[in-house]
Amino acid sequence: MILSTRGPSREGAVDAADLLPPDPREHLTSERTRAALRLQGVALTAAREHLAAAGFIELLPPIIGPVTDPGARGAKQVDIDYYGQRYKLMTSAILYKQASLLAFDRIFCIAPNVRLEPIETATTGRHLTEFHQIDVEMAGAGREQIMTVAEELLRHVVTAVASRAGDELQLLGRDVEVLTAGVLAPFAHRPHAEVTAELTARGELCNPDAEIDWLSERLLSERSSAPFFVTDYPKGSRGFYDREDAARPGVLRNFDLLLPEGYGELCSGSEREHEYARVVARMRETGENPAKYGWYLKLVREGIPASAGFGMGLERLVRYLAGLESVWQAHAFPKVAGVVSP
Amino acid sequence: MILSTRGPSREGAVDAADLLPPDPREHLTSERTRAALRLQGVALTAAREHLAAAGFIELLPPIIGPVTDPGARGAKQVDIDYYGQRYKLMTSAILYKQASLLAFDRIFCIAPNVRLEPIETATTGRHLTEFHQIDVEMAGAGREQIMTVAEELLRHVVTAVASRAGDELQLLGRDVEVLTAGVLAPFAHRPHAEVTAELTARGELCNPDAEIDWLSERLLSERSSAPFFVTDYPKGSRGFYDREDAARPGVLRNFDLLLPEGYGELCSGSEREHEYARVVARMRETGENPAKYGWYLKLVREGIPASAGFGMGLERLVRYLAGLESVWQAHAFPKVAGVVSP
Repeated sequence: MILSTRGPSREGAVDAADLLPPDPREHLTSERTRAALRLQGVALTAAREHLAAAGFIELLPPIIGPVTDPGARGAKQVDIDYYGQRYKLMTSAILYKQASLLAFDRIFCIAPNVRLEPIETATTGRHLTEFHQIDVEMAGAGREQIMTVAEELLRHVVTAVASRAGDELQLLGRDVEVLTAGVLAPFAHRPHAEVTAELTARGELCNPDAEIDWLSERLLSERSSAPFFVTDYPKGSRGFYDREDAARPGVLRNFDLLLPEGYGELCSGSEREHEYARVVARMRETGENPAKYGWYLKLVREGIPASAGFGMGLERLVRYLAGLESVWQAHAFPKVAGVVSP
Repeated sequence: MILSTRGPSREGAVDAADLLPPDPREHLTSERTRAALRLQGVALTAAREHLAAAGFIELLPPIIGPVTDPGARGAKQVDIDYYGQRYKLMTSAILYKQASLLAFDRIFCIAPNVRLEPIETATTGRHLTEFHQIDVEMAGAGREQIMTVAEELLRHVVTAVASRAGDELQLLGRDVEVLTAGVLAPFAHRPHAEVTAELTARGELCNPDAEIDWLSERLLSERSSAPFFVTDYPKGSRGFYDREDAARPGVLRNFDLLLPEGYGELCSGSEREHEYARVVARMRETGENPAKYGWYLKLVREGIPASAGFGMGLERLVRYLAGLESVWQAHAFPKVAGVVSP
C-alpha cells in the first residue's frame, strides 16, 4: 500500500503531504537540508572521536543475515532470498554487537537498519523506514556504566556541535544556549513505574506493564528541558536480549534516554542476557523460535561475554541537535512508511 | 544452492574449505582478525581525514531503493518487497552519488553493498557478497583530476597505516617497506588497449573489447611493485554511467586502479554521463530499461552536475594493507558466495 508520491513543490494550506519529504531535488537543494547534513557530519566525527578516546573500536556491521532483532515494536522485517535461504535485512545490530565482543571488549558501529514501520508513522516526524543507529556494546559493563557512556557521548556531541557548527545552527534557527544548557547537569534517572504513575495521575492512558507509547513519551519530553533516563522497563516491552533483574523478576535492567523539548526517545539500551538457558527462555517468552537463531545461539552456548550496550538513533540525534521538525530532514534520501521514494 | 557450512575448526590437508571463512568464534578470536579489523579502523580514519581536508562531505547512502547499479559484472541483485513495490539492495551507491551533488560539490560515503556473486567466486580471495566501498564523487571533475584524488587517497592511507598501525602490520607479517615503497612515485597510467595487447603478446587469452578478467588482472598485478591505473576501457565492459569519449566513440573516460603484488583491482572510476539523452541512450545500449530508473532519470532530465568519481573496495584495500590471503579476513562477519554464514 502506497500513500502517495510527492510532487516537486507545494503551495497553499498545510495538509498531511506537508509532513512528508519533498521530491529529491527540492530536498537536496534546500539550504536547511545542506545545513542538517553538514551538522550530521560534525556529530558523527564528534561521536567517533569520543568513543575512540574511550577505547571503543569501530566495526562495520552486516546489513543482511539469517536472523535479526525481533524487538522492533510494530515494524515488519524485510525478507530476502540469499542463495535459496531466507535472510533478513538488519532491524538492529544487536546480535552482531554481542558476537563482536569475542574480538574486542568495547565496540561501536554506525549501523544502517531497515524497518517497515506501520503506515501511520509516516507523519510522526520521528520514524524513518531506513535509518542509522550509533550502536555501542561494552563487555563486563553494568547498566549504570553504560548509561554513563551514553550520557557522556550525548554531552560531547552536543558540545562539539555547538562549538563547531555555529553557522549551521544559526541557519537552522536552533538556539545554541537552549541546546547546551540541557547537557550541563547530570541526566535524571526515573524508573518506568514512577513515570507511568505520574502519567496516570495526570489522566494519561498509560499501561504500567508495557512500553510507554510515543504520545506519552512526547508529553514527558515536552515537560523537560534536559535529556533524562527512564529505567527498569517491564518484561514484555522489549526484546529477549534485555536482561531481566534477578532480584526483581519481570523488571529489565534496561533504559531509554529521552530528549527534552518534545523530541522524545533518542536511545534504548540494557544489560544483556548472555547465558544460554536464560537467552532461550527469554526467546520463548517473547514468542521467538530459538531454532531460527542458529549461529547466534551456538555462540551463546559456547560462551559470549556479559555486556551492556545501547543504540542511539542517528537521525533522531541530528533532528534534536538541529531543531528540526522531522527526522526525515536529517537524511539525504529519506524514506518514510508507505511512500515511494529513492 | 549452498556450498557448505563451516565447522568450528579444521585439521589435515589443504582443501577448498581452507579458502573459506572459519566459524564466527574461530574468526573473531583470531589475533590476525583483530589486527586486520584494527587496521581497517586506522585506514578508515585516515581516509576520512584526507577526504574531509580536501573538502569532501561524508554522507550516509541508502541501502535499499527502487533501482540500483546494473554494472556489477556477473553478480545478481537482491529484490525486496517494500510496501508492495519491488525494491533492490544497493549493489553500489552510483545513482545516489550523482544525485547528492545537488547538495554538495564533493561528497563521499562508506557504502555497504550486496551482490550475489557467482558461486565460483567463493574461493577467489577477492569477492565478498556483502562489502563496502569508499565511494567518492566530485562535481565538475575530469578523469585526470579524479584519478589524482584516488591516488592521493591511497597514498595517504598507506602512509598513515604504516606510521600508526606498526604493531598490527608486524603481527600480520606485512613488510612495511614493500607497502610504502609502492606509493612513493606517481602511479603509472596505462590504456586498456596497450594492456590487452601486452597480455595477448604474452599468450594470455584476452579480449581487447571487454573487461580484463580477474586472472589477467592478477598477472598484471603480480608483475608490478606499485599500484597503477588502467584507463580507457571499451564500451560494453561497464555500466551506462561511465562517460563515452566524444572524440573516440566506443572508448570510455574511465579507469581502474590495480594494486601490486597480485592483489588485483582495488578501485573503478570514471567521468559520468549526465546529459539526459546520453544517459538514456547508454541505458538502452547496455540493455537497461529506462522506465525502471524513474526517480534518477527525472533528476537527470531536470539537470545534475557533470562529475567524476570512483568506488574503492574497502575490504580489498585492507587486504592489501594487511597483506592478507583473502578479502574475507578483513571483515568481522564475512559472507562469500553460496555459503550460509552470519
